[in-house]
Amino acid sequence: MTDIVRTALILGGARSGKSGFAQGLAENSGRKPVLIATAQALDDEMAARIAHHRADRGSVWGVLEEPLDLVGALAREAINDNITVVDCLTLWIGNLMCAELEVALECERLIEAVTLVRAPVIFVSNEVGSGIVPDNAMARTFRDYQGRLNQRLAQACDHVVLVVAGCPLQVKPATRVDLQF
Amino acid sequence: MTDIVRTALILGGARSGKSGFAQGLAENSGRKPVLIATAQALDDEMAARIAHHRADRGSVWGVLEEPLDLVGALAREAINDNITVVDCLTLWIGNLMCAELEVALECERLIEAVTLVRAPVIFVSNEVGSGIVPDNAMARTFRDYQGRLNQRLAQACDHVVLVVAGCPLQVKPATRVDLQF
Amino acid sequence: MTDIVRTALILGGARSGKSGFAQGLAENSGRKPVLIATAQALDDEMAARIAHHRADRGSVWGVLEEPLDLVGALAREAINDNITVVDCLTLWIGNLMCAELEVALECERLIEAVTLVRAPVIFVSNEVGSGIVPDNAMARTFRDYQGRLNQRLAQACDHVVLVVAGCPLQVKPATRVDLQF
Repeated sequence: MTDIVRTALILGGARSGKSGFAQGLAENSGRKPVLIATAQALDDEMAARIAHHRADRGSVWGVLEEPLDLVGALAREAINDNITVVDCLTLWIGNLMCAELEVALECERLIEAVTLVRAPVIFVSNEVGSGIVPDNAMARTFRDYQGRLNQRLAQACDHVVLVVAGCPLQVKPATRVDLQF
Repeated sequence: MTDIVRTALILGGARSGKSGFAQGLAENSGRKPVLIATAQALDDEMAARIAHHRADRGSVWGVLEEPLDLVGALAREAINDNITVVDCLTLWIGNLMCAELEVALECERLIEAVTLVRAPVIFVSNEVGSGIVPDNAMARTFRDYQGRLNQRLAQACDHVVLVVAGCPLQVKPATRVDLQF
Repeated sequence: MTDIVRTALILGGARSGKSGFAQGLAENSGRKPVLIATAQALDDEMAARIAHHRADRGSVWGVLEEPLDLVGALAREAINDNITVVDCLTLWIGNLMCAELEVALECERLIEAVTLVRAPVIFVSNEVGSGIVPDNAMARTFRDYQGRLNQRLAQACDHVVLVVAGCPLQVKPATRVDLQF
């Protein structure tokens, strides 16, 4: 028997197929899919996908643009028979930095919210730490926030999946790594 | 019983050991290995490896340098008892961009060719999307092309392997990730 | 039965949780944990962690700062009932480059030392090759050294783990990838 999952974190690099994977999970869940988009302007691909779904009788995405107040949006949307996809946390951190809000504090509020949601949520986030150290101090700060949030969320979520070229690699529950020294 | 594989995609970061892994697969296949090199000047390590193999009676690599017309090269080489290694798609995309060709169209032609090849082919490609967003617009465009091609090829190929520090991690066929919300 | 592990390599991106994972392995090993820190100034998080452990009766980390002579430090520390964590090889390569030492030669000496250590050692190293090719020639050289060392060490070590958002993904021993063409 498969356990019921309440929260999942979908990680991947840029153009790794992580958003498509998350959307597919939501569409196949039997629940009403709701997208909380942290980007203010959705990209063409996403807009086309949503238009396609809106045109399709069988599947209606609710869409909400929320660049900053993710905690409030989750409290309003992650309820009843909804399944919420938050896409993505990387843009959210960027938006918080641009708005000069306290990123670490907002991330703590998000983690607390994850323990309180009343319907399933799928978070989409980028892996940004596997390149060379950026020259730019702001990029290094951003990378630190992103990495710390990914770790905290991975702890808080039931499942973590790394998407590589569109293919899912299960990260949590982890394969037992039992090293005896 | 292990199924016969016709097409494989080997992904990895820079200096991850992906080329060595792909070459090992070809050398152990029992078929005549042919390298389609998209770099015009092969690096020393590769040149040494090929020289070593040419000197070795039991194993003769055919080598073809083809920076742009990968589809034509596959049609000519991926035949009979050959096994073809294409190394790598990252340089190929770079070459297409430098030559101001239509990258998206060339990628579609490649995907179509993959469905038509008459002998096994192993593609080598880079993971380039797991660092910080590049400052440079051309680098962002490149990253998008690369990520989209990796996703399309992963869909089209029988097997996908991610190489980490020389060690293979199977990505496709995927471990069943069955999330019930 | 689980085999006894003598050497492990823990890989991950920046802020992936690789250090915490390595430290946890050492703390749970039943051996005296010794940290060889290649950074000259430890970061606050690490300093706090060590202070916490020093204050804690049950667990006393030995800490040694060694930016360059890792081979000498291993010969002195990786003995008896110790378990040594080397954190991290990425800073070590950077230190060698800054000191204008021969990086490739030092890496060979380290690999040789790995075969000679008399007590368990856990190496922590960064994945730095999964972003866009750096503009900067020194960054490209660094990336090549790092990738080659990770491959060599992965070959020499009993176990390799990739840490993603704090979750371990076993890389070596590898899942059998048996491709028949």
